[in-house]
Amino acid sequence: MLSKNTVKFIKSLHQKKYRVESGKFFVEGEKSVLEVLQSSFTVDLLLVTQEFATKHAKVLSGVQAEVGYVTANQLEQVGQYQSNDAALAVVQMKPNQGFTPLKGELILALDEVRDPGNLGTIIRIADWYGIKKIIFYTQTVEFYNPKVIQSSMGSFTRVQFYYGDLVQAFQAWKLPVYGAFLEGESIHQLTNPAPGVLLLGNESQGISKEVEKWVSSKVTIPSFGNAESLNVAIATAIFCDNFKRLVHP
Amino acid sequence: MLSKNTVKFIKSLHQKKYRVESGKFFVEGEKSVLEVLQSSFTVDLLLVTQEFATKHAKVLSGVQAEVGYVTANQLEQVGQYQSNDAALAVVQMKPNQGFTPLKGELILALDEVRDPGNLGTIIRIADWYGIKKIIFYTQTVEFYNPKVIQSSMGSFTRVQFYYGDLVQAFQAWKLPVYGAFLEGESIHQLTNPAPGVLLLGNESQGISKEVEKWVSSKVTIPSFGNAESLNVAIATAIFCDNFKRLVHP
Repeated sequence: MLSKNTVKFIKSLHQKKYRVESGKFFVEGEKSVLEVLQSSFTVDLLLVTQEFATKHAKVLSGVQAEVGYVTANQLEQVGQYQSNDAALAVVQMKPNQGFTPLKGELILALDEVRDPGNLGTIIRIADWYGIKKIIFYTQTVEFYNPKVIQSSMGSFTRVQFYYGDLVQAFQAWKLPVYGAFLEGESIHQLTNPAPGVLLLGNESQGISKEVEKWVSSKVTIPSFGNAESLNVAIATAIFCDNFKRLVHP
Repeated sequence: MLSKNTVKFIKSLHQKKYRVESGKFFVEGEKSVLEVLQSSFTVDLLLVTQEFATKHAKVLSGVQAEVGYVTANQLEQVGQYQSNDAALAVVQMKPNQGFTPLKGELILALDEVRDPGNLGTIIRIADWYGIKKIIFYTQTVEFYNPKVIQSSMGSFTRVQFYYGDLVQAFQAWKLPVYGAFLEGESIHQLTNPAPGVLLLGNESQGISKEVEKWVSSKVTIPSFGNAESLNVAIATAIFCDNFKRLVHP
């Protein structure tokens, strides 16, 4: 059974205003829900279909959260997926806490990425390349946006992140900052870069003037054709790939 | 003025059925329309705002197509952009003609990519890396889908492509085929690969068994973390980047 109030509450979490107010967000689909259940996030409420419950009885047996049994239809009614025959979880946000890079660690910094699909894809890329810490400039799209969660494909559970002032962080960390620019040293020419921060900018404006001052190396993805630019998630992937190829901590 | 019939016709081109029937598709937005006007595509009808016409008078002076002056509102009514204060073009499809790779050329092959956003992004990536020829397995999403056109950011005008049988093409070309797999030789370990075909598979199924038989080298993007996979457009970018770094025709 799904009460009217629960339906109303989960639907309210589609909007940022109510996510911020309640400190909660939702996760949907089999893979993502399984990942969040096995992560350091606290799940408050778990809605599952009988099929999901049977298939993942072992995972469910360890769940502390309130569990409700629902139909696929009900999941689709409260969530954003057109089709969801598995599960939906209401999850507590984590506090926005700063972090300190470890020695030899590569850190990702995003200066105001605006598109939730791009942010989710970037989180998935970071997770692929073993980058565990991401700093977002305050104006970056909200991590808990359902489209970010969805496109991260579960990787949102494995990165540590905070929203804050990039300049303050760069000052405190005293690490080399590699900024992605359309003009700079080719990443194919880099030799033995020191571990540090990979910084990517906004979809249309790139890295802001204020933050640019703290970039120690301007680097670029060499172009061999005529496209004017690459999507920011694509650029992030190519940066991570080249740095991981070169940096061996 | 925009006749009811013209509105109806352009709106019909939102659907594949009518695109195929008429052999036409549409392109919207300032950048993409400018690119298609200066490409080898034949534009049949061009709708422009007064602002666009004034700004790009020089380009327009060379246009052979019928030109209609419209408002932003009318553009948004017939197209798919939420906001378009520039232009929309109705363009003729090109015949589906095979091509022969040049000596030393890198070719991209897609085995059934299904998402139009992915295909458009892949076309933009190919254009960035100077890859001029792409072969699509017949079941790949339609090149002229408005979302493909949109996400290619004008790059659709600069690639030669055809839909056909991959196996037949590989047999005819006698080139090395590098297939993207989750298990294979790391692209970071490749040394002096010969120019040939970069092959990527479907979003969830990867490369089909039938096509896999014709892969000469299985290659993979090394993972340093825990994400299970990468999006196919992201994988294409990383493949292109590594091959362009290594292959110097």
